[in-house]
Parts: sequence; C-alpha cells; structure tokens
Amino acid sequence: MAENDCLFCKIVKGEEPAEKVLETEGFLVIKNKFPVSPVHVLVLDKKHREKKDTLSGQYPGFWDLLMDAVWKTVKHFKLDKTGYKLVNNGAGYNHFEHEHLHILGGSQEEPGGMT
Amino acid sequence: MAENDCLFCKIVKGEEPAEKVLETEGFLVIKNKFPVSPVHVLVLDKKHREKKDTLSGQYPGFWDLLMDAVWKTVKHFKLDKTGYKLVNNGAGYNHFEHEHLHILGGSQEEPGGMT
Repeated sequence: MAENDCLFCKIVKGEEPAEKVLETEGFLVIKNKFPVSPVHVLVLDKKHREKKDTLSGQYPGFWDLLMDAVWKTVKHFKLDKTGYKLVNNGAGYNHFEHEHLHILGGSQEEPGGMT
Repeated sequence: MAENDCLFCKIVKGEEPAEKVLETEGFLVIKNKFPVSPVHVLVLDKKHREKKDTLSGQYPGFWDLLMDAVWKTVKHFKLDKTGYKLVNNGAGYNHFEHEHLHILGGSQEEPGGMT
C-alpha cells in the first residue's frame, strides 16, 4: 500500500481520528477501535516502515526502540502488575503493512481472539 | 524461579529433551510441545533473562537480536510467504519467566487460541 493511502500514516499526521495513549520519539500508542480485551492498544511506528523491512533488520535498533514504547505503555496501564500479551503479525496475517504491535491486557484470563 | 529449576535453562543445556529447529548465537528455536497451529515454535534466550529485565531495557540490543532469530525462523518455515503471528507474554500471562517468544503460522486462517 502506498504511504499516501495508509490509514496509520493518516493517524500519525492527525488526518484521521484516534484516541492517543502516549507517544515516544519514534512511536505513537493509540487505543484499538475494535478491542478484544479491556486494554487493547496499538503501538504505531511514526514512519511508514513495513514488516518485510523491519523484521529483516533494515533498521538497526528498531526493535529496541519499539519495545521501549511497549514498556512505557505497559507501565502506563500497570500491566506489569497483572499481565500483558504482545502480538505482532506479518505477511498474510497482517491487515496493515505499516509496522505496528498490539498490546493486550486488563483481564484476569489471558486474552484470546483475533488480533 | 531460580535458574536451576528453569525448564528452558535445562532445554538450552540439553538436560531436557526438545525438538530443535535452529539456533543463533544468542537464541535457540524449538518446537512447542503443545502446538496451537501447524507451525508453533518458541524462540528461547540461551541465557536466563527474565521479562521484567528484558522489557525494561536492561540489555541494549536484546530485541534486535531476538527478532533476528525470529526472522531466520520465519524464513526457515517460509512463513514470510503465508503469514506469521509473534506472541510474547509478560507478568501474569507468562508461564515461564525465562524470556521466550512464540511464532505461530502454517494455517491459512490466523491462529487463535492461548499461547
């Protein structure tokens, strides 16, 4: 998908609405519009980078920076006291090529369901 | 859990059986004994590092190296052609403190179920 047509790029630019949780220098964390657990947020790369490039190591340091945003979000919701599930899809399971990671939590039982 | 009692440490040391898929310098990839999808493997840290320390950034470069092992595994199973789901649990959803990540794939539909 071209960057101009990318929903996540539009959210990052403020051209599409989203409920912001927090942001770091490189990442924006928003609430998922269709949550499958009490806490269900998306960690969005502020740049349009795609999974085929992020996973294959094109951007040194990328995953450490993404996980730093994850850690700040986990603490924000105090999920480190209860539980959290990080889900990151690729290829045919990925509905948006723009790199993003799901954080699920807020329930006593481990969340199931599709992400 | 003390390192001496850790199942994943025993697998890394060869003291407990496991079906090895591949390994990198820092990580060992094994088949999950209770798969929830046709491909269901675990990427194990060869060292006993726990989620509270890995996620909070105690080991610079850690996540890039882990994701390098993930990428090699995704290519090994050709999941980059079909689809893959990476799942990483923490706190109350984590059954083993020793850091590990699930890779799920091999089905046309996105895998659900507990991990």
